[in-house]
Amino acid sequence: MPITRQDCEVRDQQDPLRELKSQFDLPPGVIYLDGNSLGVLPRATLGRVQEVIQREWGQDLIKSWNTAGWIDLPGRIGDKIARLVGARPGELIVADSTSLNLYKVLSTALSLQQQDAPQRKLIVSERSNFPTDLYIAQSLAEQFGARLHLVDRVEDIPACLNQELAVLMLTEVNYRTGYKHEMATLTQAAHAAGALVVWDLAHSAGAVPVDLHAAEADFAIGCGYKYLNGGPGAPAFAWVHPRHVARAKQPLSGWLGHAAPFQFTTDYQPAAGIKRYICGTPALLSLAALECGVDTVLAAEPQGGMAALRTKSIALTELFIALAEARCGHLGVLLASPRDARQRGSQVCLSLQPELQEASYAVVQALIARGVIGDFRAGNPADLAATPHILRFGFTPLYLGFVDVFDAVEHLFQVLQREEWKTPQFAQKGQVT
Amino acid sequence: MPITRQDCEVRDQQDPLRELKSQFDLPPGVIYLDGNSLGVLPRATLGRVQEVIQREWGQDLIKSWNTAGWIDLPGRIGDKIARLVGARPGELIVADSTSLNLYKVLSTALSLQQQDAPQRKLIVSERSNFPTDLYIAQSLAEQFGARLHLVDRVEDIPACLNQELAVLMLTEVNYRTGYKHEMATLTQAAHAAGALVVWDLAHSAGAVPVDLHAAEADFAIGCGYKYLNGGPGAPAFAWVHPRHVARAKQPLSGWLGHAAPFQFTTDYQPAAGIKRYICGTPALLSLAALECGVDTVLAAEPQGGMAALRTKSIALTELFIALAEARCGHLGVLLASPRDARQRGSQVCLSLQPELQEASYAVVQALIARGVIGDFRAGNPADLAATPHILRFGFTPLYLGFVDVFDAVEHLFQVLQREEWKTPQFAQKGQVT
Repeated sequence: MPITRQDCEVRDQQDPLRELKSQFDLPPGVIYLDGNSLGVLPRATLGRVQEVIQREWGQDLIKSWNTAGWIDLPGRIGDKIARLVGARPGELIVADSTSLNLYKVLSTALSLQQQDAPQRKLIVSERSNFPTDLYIAQSLAEQFGARLHLVDRVEDIPACLNQELAVLMLTEVNYRTGYKHEMATLTQAAHAAGALVVWDLAHSAGAVPVDLHAAEADFAIGCGYKYLNGGPGAPAFAWVHPRHVARAKQPLSGWLGHAAPFQFTTDYQPAAGIKRYICGTPALLSLAALECGVDTVLAAEPQGGMAALRTKSIALTELFIALAEARCGHLGVLLASPRDARQRGSQVCLSLQPELQEASYAVVQALIARGVIGDFRAGNPADLAATPHILRFGFTPLYLGFVDVFDAVEHLFQVLQREEWKTPQFAQKGQVT
Repeated sequence: MPITRQDCEVRDQQDPLRELKSQFDLPPGVIYLDGNSLGVLPRATLGRVQEVIQREWGQDLIKSWNTAGWIDLPGRIGDKIARLVGARPGELIVADSTSLNLYKVLSTALSLQQQDAPQRKLIVSERSNFPTDLYIAQSLAEQFGARLHLVDRVEDIPACLNQELAVLMLTEVNYRTGYKHEMATLTQAAHAAGALVVWDLAHSAGAVPVDLHAAEADFAIGCGYKYLNGGPGAPAFAWVHPRHVARAKQPLSGWLGHAAPFQFTTDYQPAAGIKRYICGTPALLSLAALECGVDTVLAAEPQGGMAALRTKSIALTELFIALAEARCGHLGVLLASPRDARQRGSQVCLSLQPELQEASYAVVQALIARGVIGDFRAGNPADLAATPHILRFGFTPLYLGFVDVFDAVEHLFQVLQREEWKTPQFAQKGQVT
């Protein structure tokens, strides 16, 4: 029997997390399936940023570094994010961007291997990793006289875990396909081979349960503006396992990572713990907004926290896949994410059958015009069969319900069935897609 | 005849820049002499940040990267700052923090020398440079197998301009003393010796006229939250002379510095011009606030821009010195900044005679309690005669007038004459001083 909208209404009513949506200001008429790119605006953010601007900056001015606790914010918000990724208080800080934090931790990992196992000169990652990670790794490979090797398939990773490997650098949840690695298994296998592992949690933090300590991870970084709802370009985070943190300096040695920044001494002495991963003065307005975003995820703790969010996320993505295939399969829609929920983050990607591939971008635009916001990620033009264009949909259980999923698929059905994507305006590409 | 408050009132009435103060929300009863540390809040900032939060992020969400021009902001604000420092459109970008931008440009400078003159292995700077600059230089010296040599006196710089020198790295206006280097003279002397020069404009941009092209400078960086009024931790900026920009990659190769970031290609190809100095996604809320701050300085353009601001800045600092010496000289107040205005940025530092040195911190606190906000910078406890404790006062002509200066000195007189600094609460040190 087909799933009805009424079925979905019942599921929304029974959803123990349904009240969490009231934390956000969602535009009317929008089904937002792009929280994996930019999370939505929490209701608390505007007031908090106003307070920082008017009272803390405007009235109290320079004093706020002490009186408003500005100086402690990177650690205070870091402690909150730590609760979402299985880290302990004092182990994680908020600073700079994801790219910069990757530079810091990957550089540290390479330095440690240079000390401990100088013959190891290989960084391994996936060709499908988010480009900025690869760009940073290329820069550091050059600097360390190392080589970056990219695998095309997850199955190719085990063969790379050998005596040449210095660092395995992976994004836990793939930004394109939503494929989710087994963090603990891969970390342990890499360790057994003598390598260190850097995990990018950009699509994990706030999206799937992460337990860095249980996985015995070495280094992790992540993004503040996706599932953490921190706002456009929100500062990112960095975590280093306590067994490594004091063993090496990181190269971006700005004054706020100093053991005693306000003594203004001439020589750099890194702070004892994770604070050495702070560099310059943090962008306070964006930092304050990030805290409001992180708080929206922590608000799920009384209902079971990340485990409960994951349960709902899987239910939403399973529903989306079932409906998309039932309603739109005959119109050429194919699943491009793993079918097994255990191998999937909080997103689902679809692709269109070969003869519709070139319509993919316009289909996403037609959906956006209907208020269903997902995004398009181009495939490999040289081999669309292997890497097709993708329609990417993120599911944030904090603010999405089952009726939203039902309606999104219904819109997709209508766009395809009525061939709305043929409207010329939908084929015009913007700069950011 | 002594200068009276009435004289100052007349000067305020005759001040062609007096209307610029209306751009700011200053707390009542405050004379803010700390704009060299954190500029005050522009009136436009709150509304602009509200707009970014509510409309651009909250309503338009991910679309705002295109529709609100988020992607162009680093260059757009960069072009505005360029007008203040003698750079041309398209040559300067806003990104990350001052420390990180220094890492980028100093690394590039060292790379270029490694190509062109590999025997040059010396970075020269001043021991009194702002510590974060020295910390970053230490990290890069280690990475490049170079050595950082610090001079104790400005007069020692010329002897360092020899065939060993790779990079001369200076902050144009010293953060402690306000001493201002002759940028053009030093740059040309360094070039004549075959060296490159990195200028930190943290205390210059928006404070003194800078002409990077006239000076034939190589690299410059600067801060957004001091004289540019960009807000706490506002993003910083970087400039590279067009003759260098395409010759080398910078190492912090994040995706937004790529030639085509939205093609998501695997290999890093730097953007053609200064955009290669962008790294990760910018902190948008802080970036939007920075633009409002920069606009407050550009608002002086119809009245003569930086030249007019400099004229008033010199008038304010000369008045402050004259009054401080006349009113407080017999109470132990000494000038600790250059007496010649041409050698001074937009700040004046005072110190107290030797027997009052230990009271310096409490004097600053007593002034703050009276609403006169300056700051304290500790001297060298091993040699307070050579490097005394300092009472530091910044003068921002955009929002300060001559009566403010008169009143500030009158407060200092009363603090010293009534020995208010002996009040126990004023001796308690906070973390950030």
